[in-house]
Amino acid sequence: MLKPESMRLRMERMVRETQESICQSIEELDGAHFRHDLWTRPDGGGGDSRVLQGGNVFEKAGVNVAVVYGTMAADAVRSALGQGRSLPAGAMAFFATGLSVVVHPHNPMVPSAHANYRYFELAGDPPAQSWWFGGGADLSPSYLIREDAVHFHRVHKEVCDLYDSSFYPRFKKWCDEYFYISHRGERRGVGGIFFDNLNDRDRNQLFAFISSCALAFVPAYMPIVKARKDMPFTDIHKHWQQIRRGRYVEFNLIYDRGTIFGLKTGGRTESILMSLPLVGSWEETSLPEVDSLESRTLEVLRHPQEWA
Amino acid sequence: MLKPESMRLRMERMVRETQESICQSIEELDGAHFRHDLWTRPDGGGGDSRVLQGGNVFEKAGVNVAVVYGTMAADAVRSALGQGRSLPAGAMAFFATGLSVVVHPHNPMVPSAHANYRYFELAGDPPAQSWWFGGGADLSPSYLIREDAVHFHRVHKEVCDLYDSSFYPRFKKWCDEYFYISHRGERRGVGGIFFDNLNDRDRNQLFAFISSCALAFVPAYMPIVKARKDMPFTDIHKHWQQIRRGRYVEFNLIYDRGTIFGLKTGGRTESILMSLPLVGSWEETSLPEVDSLESRTLEVLRHPQEWA
Repeated sequence: MLKPESMRLRMERMVRETQESICQSIEELDGAHFRHDLWTRPDGGGGDSRVLQGGNVFEKAGVNVAVVYGTMAADAVRSALGQGRSLPAGAMAFFATGLSVVVHPHNPMVPSAHANYRYFELAGDPPAQSWWFGGGADLSPSYLIREDAVHFHRVHKEVCDLYDSSFYPRFKKWCDEYFYISHRGERRGVGGIFFDNLNDRDRNQLFAFISSCALAFVPAYMPIVKARKDMPFTDIHKHWQQIRRGRYVEFNLIYDRGTIFGLKTGGRTESILMSLPLVGSWEETSLPEVDSLESRTLEVLRHPQEWA
Repeated sequence: MLKPESMRLRMERMVRETQESICQSIEELDGAHFRHDLWTRPDGGGGDSRVLQGGNVFEKAGVNVAVVYGTMAADAVRSALGQGRSLPAGAMAFFATGLSVVVHPHNPMVPSAHANYRYFELAGDPPAQSWWFGGGADLSPSYLIREDAVHFHRVHKEVCDLYDSSFYPRFKKWCDEYFYISHRGERRGVGGIFFDNLNDRDRNQLFAFISSCALAFVPAYMPIVKARKDMPFTDIHKHWQQIRRGRYVEFNLIYDRGTIFGLKTGGRTESILMSLPLVGSWEETSLPEVDSLESRTLEVLRHPQEWA
């Protein structure tokens, strides 16, 4: 009988396979190709960063895999985790692997999309064996097209419901809360699902769940791109898209836990900031006109809705 | 005999007069005009935010005055101050006034410039009467022109030397340290002066010093703009400028104490983020070619030099 594979290896294989299939799907639609950048981490592990820039459909797309391990100061672990998890003091051995995907299309009628799925393990001295999963996927339109938001949410709800009918409502709400740009009173987009520190049931079951979520990215997002990529647009639309992308930058640099933690603890800057759009704009604008497409989108970013 | 005016009033008058003269100088050179936005703060005070956008010479310039007061939680005071100052627990009455100036020109050969001068007073219960000044000015070129960096530093050194010959070396170094983008290993620009929590001598003397610094902004910066604004440039130069402005955004949103504190404690978002450039770019770039203008500028951003 074969020895069962470790979760580390299973997760690593899953994120690598998903990276490959997402990149293929993007390249097929775009015609342009990802540049690959294999890197190693001096303290242990490394990654495979792929970026497609200035394509036919996509302004910038990044699909990264990282597999890193080593020793982490307890402080760093604590701030990586956020509150709510008690840990022994002292340095701990850790292992982390994850996939992150960020796609910013050219056409302002096509939303940006983001997904991230990760697995974390800690082993301390005294032994504090611990593991959890985190992740999610969310959609950021400059111009809201309701059926796109509905489609993206429905695909993710269906995946969640396969495992636990409480997942989608919980993770949808968590997503709306997480991607909140409080100084703007807006969310980054129309959400999707978000979860962290997930370890409340059988690990194999959670791995199956997160694998299904990762597989869902292509069917949740690519049909939207195909349907909208050739819609006509004007400079006004492009301009509003750049303002919205400025907000995207604000969220990632001010609020995103992974970004800030990564940058401040010596993570790989190029991979961490691959999530930023090609261009962000901070023009001083008056609010969009009442009942314009822009103001209707803003309204939804201010007041999250039910989509699925 | 007239009662001497309070420092609050003297500082407020100084920042308002300086705002006026900086705006005049910018409008004269540009031809376009500032939009004025007077605002009040629900909890006490208000400000005068002025922005010029899409001018002939300047892409975006913001010159703000704020005069705010009220009650501040001790935690907020502490995080406003940073480390090194012991304070009683509990809420405190505070007063703060300041001028902030950010100028982003169109031409990539003209550096961006920033200045900020502020006065802070606290009065707690138990009484903890306390005051201090903070401020500085710094220059951020996309393309380093050495004599411009020298000019900007010399003007500030001359002002510093009028008051204390230790000021310029101390504040120049502090500036290089403060504007460090650690995840890039670069400074935001070629520096200038920076100081905070300044209250180690007679208050009138420090007020005179900070007033002289504020007055120095126009002679330190505007001659550079005049000399470089009509230099020829190509799309390649403009593109590099936008990459550098992306770094400017990174510094302001990730490291700048005032920005982060302001946004997270409910400051006025439009005024706080007026410092951001019109456009920032995050194109994945290979490093500039050896000995190119871009790499020579980067070299200086990585290794601060003596200019004055």
